[in-house]
Order: sequence, then C-alpha cells, then structure tokens
Amino acid sequence: MTPLLDSLVSKMPSLSASDHASVVSLNLFVALLCACIVLGHLLEENRWMNESITALLIGLATGVVILLISNGKSSHLLVFSEDLFFIYLLPPIIFNAGFQVKKKQFFRNFVTIMLFGAIGTVVSCTVITLGVTQFFKKLDIGTFDLGDYLAIGAIFAATDSVCTLQVLNQDETPLLYSLVFGEGVVNDATSVVVFNAMQSFDLTHLNHEAAFRLLGNFFYLFLLSTLLGVATGLISAYIIKKLYFGRHSTDREVALMMLMAYLSYMLAELFDLSGILTVFFCGIVMSHYTWHNVTESSRITTKHAFATLSFLAETFIFLYVGMDALDIDKWRSVSDSPGTSVAVSSILIGLLMLGRAAFVFPLSFLSNLAKKNQSERIDFKMQVVIWWSGLMRGAVSMALAYNKFTRAGKTDLRGNAIMITSTITVCLFSTVVFGMLTKPLIRFLLPHQKATTSFLSDGNTPKSIQIPLIDQDSFIEFAGNHNVPRPDSIRGFLTRPTRTVHYYWRQFDDSFMRPVFGGRGFVPFVPGSPTERDPPTDLSRA
Amino acid sequence: MTPLLDSLVSKMPSLSASDHASVVSLNLFVALLCACIVLGHLLEENRWMNESITALLIGLATGVVILLISNGKSSHLLVFSEDLFFIYLLPPIIFNAGFQVKKKQFFRNFVTIMLFGAIGTVVSCTVITLGVTQFFKKLDIGTFDLGDYLAIGAIFAATDSVCTLQVLNQDETPLLYSLVFGEGVVNDATSVVVFNAMQSFDLTHLNHEAAFRLLGNFFYLFLLSTLLGVATGLISAYIIKKLYFGRHSTDREVALMMLMAYLSYMLAELFDLSGILTVFFCGIVMSHYTWHNVTESSRITTKHAFATLSFLAETFIFLYVGMDALDIDKWRSVSDSPGTSVAVSSILIGLLMLGRAAFVFPLSFLSNLAKKNQSERIDFKMQVVIWWSGLMRGAVSMALAYNKFTRAGKTDLRGNAIMITSTITVCLFSTVVFGMLTKPLIRFLLPHQKATTSFLSDGNTPKSIQIPLIDQDSFIEFAGNHNVPRPDSIRGFLTRPTRTVHYYWRQFDDSFMRPVFGGRGFVPFVPGSPTERDPPTDLSRA
Repeated sequence: MTPLLDSLVSKMPSLSASDHASVVSLNLFVALLCACIVLGHLLEENRWMNESITALLIGLATGVVILLISNGKSSHLLVFSEDLFFIYLLPPIIFNAGFQVKKKQFFRNFVTIMLFGAIGTVVSCTVITLGVTQFFKKLDIGTFDLGDYLAIGAIFAATDSVCTLQVLNQDETPLLYSLVFGEGVVNDATSVVVFNAMQSFDLTHLNHEAAFRLLGNFFYLFLLSTLLGVATGLISAYIIKKLYFGRHSTDREVALMMLMAYLSYMLAELFDLSGILTVFFCGIVMSHYTWHNVTESSRITTKHAFATLSFLAETFIFLYVGMDALDIDKWRSVSDSPGTSVAVSSILIGLLMLGRAAFVFPLSFLSNLAKKNQSERIDFKMQVVIWWSGLMRGAVSMALAYNKFTRAGKTDLRGNAIMITSTITVCLFSTVVFGMLTKPLIRFLLPHQKATTSFLSDGNTPKSIQIPLIDQDSFIEFAGNHNVPRPDSIRGFLTRPTRTVHYYWRQFDDSFMRPVFGGRGFVPFVPGSPTERDPPTDLSRA
Repeated sequence: MTPLLDSLVSKMPSLSASDHASVVSLNLFVALLCACIVLGHLLEENRWMNESITALLIGLATGVVILLISNGKSSHLLVFSEDLFFIYLLPPIIFNAGFQVKKKQFFRNFVTIMLFGAIGTVVSCTVITLGVTQFFKKLDIGTFDLGDYLAIGAIFAATDSVCTLQVLNQDETPLLYSLVFGEGVVNDATSVVVFNAMQSFDLTHLNHEAAFRLLGNFFYLFLLSTLLGVATGLISAYIIKKLYFGRHSTDREVALMMLMAYLSYMLAELFDLSGILTVFFCGIVMSHYTWHNVTESSRITTKHAFATLSFLAETFIFLYVGMDALDIDKWRSVSDSPGTSVAVSSILIGLLMLGRAAFVFPLSFLSNLAKKNQSERIDFKMQVVIWWSGLMRGAVSMALAYNKFTRAGKTDLRGNAIMITSTITVCLFSTVVFGMLTKPLIRFLLPHQKATTSFLSDGNTPKSIQIPLIDQDSFIEFAGNHNVPRPDSIRGFLTRPTRTVHYYWRQFDDSFMRPVFGGRGFVPFVPGSPTERDPPTDLSRA
C-alpha cells in the first residue's frame, strides 16, 4: 500500500500549460489539425495522398518553417512525448477499433488473425533481430547487447496499417479488410507486450527456463489483459442496464461509457498489463452489450464521438511525428557520418520487408489449408496486399524507440542517437513512400476496388462509420443453424473448433449473458425512446 | 515576432503523465468520476443533494481517506492547477452554454441579462471591495493594498449558478431560467475581465483618467472578444457549408466544430481577450449557422457530445475542488489563529450576500419599469431566487484566488495564506450549505416547481439537453410580425430598441447571413441524408 500512496501523494499529472508558450503551441496545433482535416478532405480524390500522409507532410512543412524562422536554433521544437502518446492518444484509437469492428468477421477469422498478429509479429521480430545482429557488427555504431537487438526487433515489428485501411473497402473485400485490420490491432498489442516482456527480463543468462518463462509471461499478459477488458465492458453494461432503466440520460450514459473505457486502459497500465488489448476487448464487449442498453441518441453519439476522437488522435499523431522529425539535436550527433545513418535505415527497411514476407506467405498457406470453400481462402494477390499493408511504421515504433533509446540519459551515446534518427527515417520513408504507393498498388492488384474512393466520398460518413456495428444477419444465421458441419478432413478439423465454439457461445450468450448484461433484443422497451417512433434504420440496426 | 517564436521554440505543453504516480492519480480520478455519475443519478430524487454537491462531497471524502492513510503527511495531495481549469475544463462548459442556450429567450432578455451580469457584477465587486477595506483593517491579517482589495472584490463577485440551474426548470419558468443562466455566463466573463483589467493597471495612481481607461479597456475587451467568437463561428459555418456539400462526413464535421470552438477560446487567450465571452458567442453562432449545415448524425452527436464534455468538466471541477480543499500546507499557516480565518470567511459571506442584494433588487425594479405585460416582469419571489442563485462560489473564484495569492512565491505571506483558506472555506460552505437549501427554497417560493425533479428524471435526457437548440416558433413569429410596436411610454422607449434591433436583425439574417453561412432552411437538400427519411422531429427541429 505504501508505494501506491507515496506515488499518489507526490503529485497530479501536470496537465497544465501555464505559460504563453503553451498557449501559442496549442493554438498552432489546433489550427494545424483544422488544416489537416480540410486539406485531407480536399485531397481525398487524389491518387497518391491519404489523410495520414497529408498530416505528416503538414507537420514536416510546419517544422521546416519554424526551423527557418528561428535560424536553425529550434533544437527542441516539439519533443515527442511517449506518455502523451500512450496515455492520451492511443487509447481512443484502439477503443474505437474494438467498438467499430465487424465482430462476426473478426471472430470468424480469429485463428488466422491471431496467427498473423501474434505468431507473425514474433517471426518478424526474430528475423529483424537476427538481421541487425549480423549487419550492425560490420558497421561502426557503438555497442549493443542482446537486449538492445531484441528491442530493435520489437520496435520494427510494430506495423501501422492505417494507410492501407483508408484505401481498402470493407464491403467489397470483407475478408481482406478484417485480416489487415485484425492483424494491425493484435500486432500493436503483441509488439508492446514483447517489448515490455523483454525489458523486464534478464537476458544475459538466456536459457530454456528463461525462454519458457518469457513465453508464459506473454500468455499471462495476453489472457489477463483480455479478461480485464471484458470485465470492465460487462460492468459498464450491467451498471447502465440496472441503473438507468426507465429514465435514461444521454449525457450520463455517454460519459459513463467514455470513462469506463478509459478506466479499463488505465487499470491495465496500473497493473502492468497490455492496455491496448484491454481497451480493444472492452470496446468489443461495449458494442455487443452496453451499446444496446442506452438510448437511440446515445448510440448515435457514442458511435460518432468515439470515431471522431480516434480520427483526431490519429491525425494528431501523424502531425506530431512530422514536426518532431526535425528536432535538430537528434540529427547533430549523426551528422558527421551520414553514410552510416543511411545504411542503418536501409538495412532496417530491407529487414522489415523480409521479416514480413517470412510469415505472411507461409502462414497464409497454413490458413488456406483449413478453409473449405474458395471464397474464404487468401489468394496470392491478397497475400501481397497483407504483406504490403504492414510495411508502414508509425507512432508505436517511435514511442518504443524513444522509450528504449532515450531513457536514463542515454541519448548522448552514438549508437542510441543513430537508432533514434534511423527510426524517424524509417517511419517517414515508409509512411510517405510506401503509403503513397498503396492506392495505386491496391487498384492494380484488386481492380474491382476502383470505385473505392468515390464510394467513400459519396457516403455521408467516413470509412470507420460505414462499418455497421454488428452484422444484422449474424443472430439469425446462428440461431437457425443448429447443425454444426461434421469434420471430414484436415480442413474440417481446423475449421470445426471455431464454428463449434461460435455455436456454443451463441447459446450461452442468448441464455445467460444477454438477459443479465443486456444486448440486442434483450433490453426492455423504454416508452418515449426514439426507437418507438422510428423503425430500425441503419442507425439503430445491430 | 521574436517573443512569439522564442516561446514557441521553448517547449510543448507538458501533457505527459510519465510516472507511475500519474497513472495511479488518473485511475483514481476516472474511478471517482464514475462514482460521481452513478451516485449523482441515485441521489437525483433526494431533497437536498444535487450533482455538484455530490461531487464536492466525494472529493472531500477521498481527501480525508488519503489524508488518514498517509498519516497527515500528504501536504500536496492534489494541487489546484489554475491552467488545467482555464485551458481544459472551462472552455467546454462555456461553449456548451452558448451552444445549448435558448437564443430567443437570451436575446429577448439581453438588456436585463447585461444589467445583471455586467453592471451587477461591478456593483457586487465594489460593495465587497469597500467592505473588506473597512473590516480587514480591524483584523490582524497582514498588509493589503488597493489592488489586493479590488482583486478580492472581483474574486468574490464571480458566482457559480450551476446548483440553481440544476433545480430550475426551463420550460416552467423560462424567464427566470434565462435570467439566472445568462447572468451566470456574463458574470463569469465580467469577473475575469475585471480581474485581469485590474491586474494590468497601475492602481497606485488612481485618478479620473485611469478610471476611464479602465472602463474603455473593459468595453474594448468585451467587444473584441465577442467579435472574435462570432467570426470563428461564421468561418466554421462557411467552411462546412462550402466544403462538405454533397459529401458530408460526420467525423470530420464534428472534429472541425470541436477544433474551431476550442481555437476561438485559445485565440482569445493568445490575444489577452476574454476566452469565456469568445467561446460563448462562438457557441451561439455555431448553433445558429454551423449546426444546420451538418448531417443529422452530426447534429445529434455534437448536441450530446458537447453536453457530455461540459458535464464531465463540471463534475471534475467540483471533485477537484473538494480534494484540493484538504491540502495541509495551506491550513498550517493559519492554524495558530483559527478565529481570524473564521472571521474573514464570515465577513466575506456576509459581504457577498449584501453585494448581491445591492444590485438584484434595484436592477429588477429598473427592468420591470421597461416591461409592458405582467408576465415579463420579475416579481419579488423571482428576485429572491435570482439573488439566491448567485450566492454560491465555485471554481472561478478558486482559480482567480490562486492566481492572485499564490503567484510569485507569495504563498508564505500570512495574508495570502489566510485569503486562500478563506476562499476555500467560502466555496465549500456556500456550495454545500446554500446549495443544499436551494431545492427546498425554490420549492417553497415557486410551488408549481414541485414536479421539477420527476420531470427531469422522466425525460431521456438531462437538463442541458432538454433545451431545444433554437425555438421553433421564433422564425415564424418574427417573419410575420412586421409591425413593430410603437413606443408610448417609458416602457416602450426601453422596449423598442430591443424589438426593433431584433426585427432588423431578422431581415439581415434572412437576406444575407443565412444564404452565405447556411442555417435553418438555407441548406440545400442533401440526397441520402437522414432528413430525407424522417420528418423533422425534436432532433431536427430548429
């Protein structure tokens, strides 16, 4: 109890922005965010651009302008704050991902997603670690130990599939979308879990026992984080169902959902679990139960408010990364050997492409073995898109790199400075160059995707909102589908568990979970609620 | 340009919450906010309580618990951060006030509201200043100069009418509600403007010229702040109207509205204007123009999201004030003379009651002279309610007191310590004691208000949402009411300008403003928007 209290007593998070400088910075940032939104909208039809790249380039341009006006003196223009990222910006993005995901697609492809997201990330991490161990010894960039190499592997195994998701169309290629999307979320969580697990382990005496403990630690974190998220989501559903029945209050419901979602993330951080996994599963549970217990207005509000917050946080991150990239101090210590920096960055880009290829194609082959019908298989073009979608590196890599290579005053070391600048280079290069090639590539590989952009812009909501929260037919399909297909081959063997689990889950959900926690069809009729007037349209579906 | 750049270069607002302590604090705060919402809901039917008092008491209780566990060592448990309050918590509250206000009622009673809010606050400030000048000389509490006395006047002229507004019913007593509500907003702005104007003035040589410059400064701030808010609101309306026509995107619209609203506040702070006034008028303009240019989903989302943010900020403030009140350090320096502290607090409470009475009753009399029909007059019972509604002191007083009496290391001075503890005492006492008496008092004075609580809890939205954004009949009424009543007495003389101004404003609005900036009835039909399906219900009205 004492350490907790000591820390509690020490002081509050300093949210303050006291001086004039902060007011100026806030003004600049808010104005730039507005510019990103407006420009992103205007460039929507553009062949090469997307909103992430727009924000990144605006950030870079602003950085250049300030650098020029201040005569190159702005050494610490904007310091990338790992905590700002992990405590305020990441939670809304991941929560919204869970809240808006097509759950049926996600859970149907659960095994494949886990293969890609968890095993794939570990494979990718291993390939990168082995690669840098070989190559870095030949370059003169200071001393790294095994822990450092493993950390580099974890840092560059964290993908950023936002660019690809902005181009893919969920309705035209649901399987591909759910794989890329699901992998992205699980990948983020896995990278952070692997990174943290390695940081806390003594890697100088690596043996079988330690490796098993590492593995055990990994599964422990994974399981406990998921459970915490599910529990928080269920508690929110129960509170809102019991407390507000008959006298709903939109503001309180929305506030409670926001707070409980954030609480789940912060609790996970408090207990050193993976907040990303926790808040993702909290989002899934909230959209399955809590969301059905609130009023029609609350549903519309939460759906759009969470998407808006996520969108803002995403834009902010890209803007921030762009502006931070021009921090003079970081570049100064590597300016005497630009060749080394370029070499390191090139090696890293090559390794991450290799590391990704090393799992996407083999695991796709494995996954295809288990699929019965042709439409569920991952064909070669899709495999290329999945491979490509994970080539971009973003804010998670930046945050992990800062955590590893700037902590405890180690920034002065040459090796650390090179790693930081290389991370920035890889993030910028991959996001801008690979990102710009994404739209043309996907149009080339999947020609029927041509209508994507115009489809997106025609709708009255952006991509994240076009996803209906839950598929309307999932309930009917599984309620009427009592005969579980019998396994007759290796396909059936691999397919069966998912289907059977899904069937028994439905039974359990309908007979126990929904009556207790609410959910579609299990919330008593509320007189005067807007559902009374309107027939269920796309706003109230699910 | 240089100071702006220097400050820009220095560093970003430290939003970070790096250490474990911050994670614990955030967890505690989020959990307590949840508790406030749930308990506030459960206590809604209670005769004495309201949500502000609940939050304040939960904050106090938590403070006591932590104080006990830490054996009274927690000297800086939670430091009240003036910047957290003015930069993050106040803007959403004031913006939402402007966004949800019944504009017709507000502008119809504009003159009376300005009388109460601006003149009244100055009268109240003067009475308190004169009072403390007399009384404090007799008590032994260090040396104060004229600037300090004037600051004390401004600090205790800032009211907090949240408690009263939670009890009043806008539909049953629209005149009273709009007066109390309007006065509250204008009062906040006036207090801050007066406080800042006095801080920046050399008061040692107070003469006629300086007094006039003070007055000029006040009107300059008032006018410029209003104009900035109106301009930002109109720009947001124009951008959304021009940019998004035909391909609306809910997330981007909502994000842009949020960002522009916040930008208006921060710009005002940047130019040393009154952010409160700016963001209030920005809210009014946004609800009149921008809100009509967005999709149905965006309308519902903004309406509830802004109300939720405001509700959360309000709850957070009361919780924060409650926890901060138990900071041991502040009480230590006054513990040797508890009598003096009690005396100062009592004097202040007496003076603020007197200061309020000194303008509510005379100004009500003046206002009644100008009213034609009986229903528009402010009867004595209503005057008592108006007087009572402004007796509570809240976060604005706290923030101003901290600004004045803890800046530049002056906390050690005995006089400053006494003023800080007295401010805390006055805020706690007035909010809890006066706040608890509010419900019974209003039920006693306005017996037809009895149904208020149950009415509030029956609706599917809390008080702030029951306010329709704009009155449906205002358009029709003024469109058909071409004959402006002729003045035939002093009433007519005082009434005429408002009515005439309103009439010409309507003409101007319909012929120029709405065609340019959009607004009800002037937004081209968007195919596929939800308005196509539904007839205008209460969600789409206004």
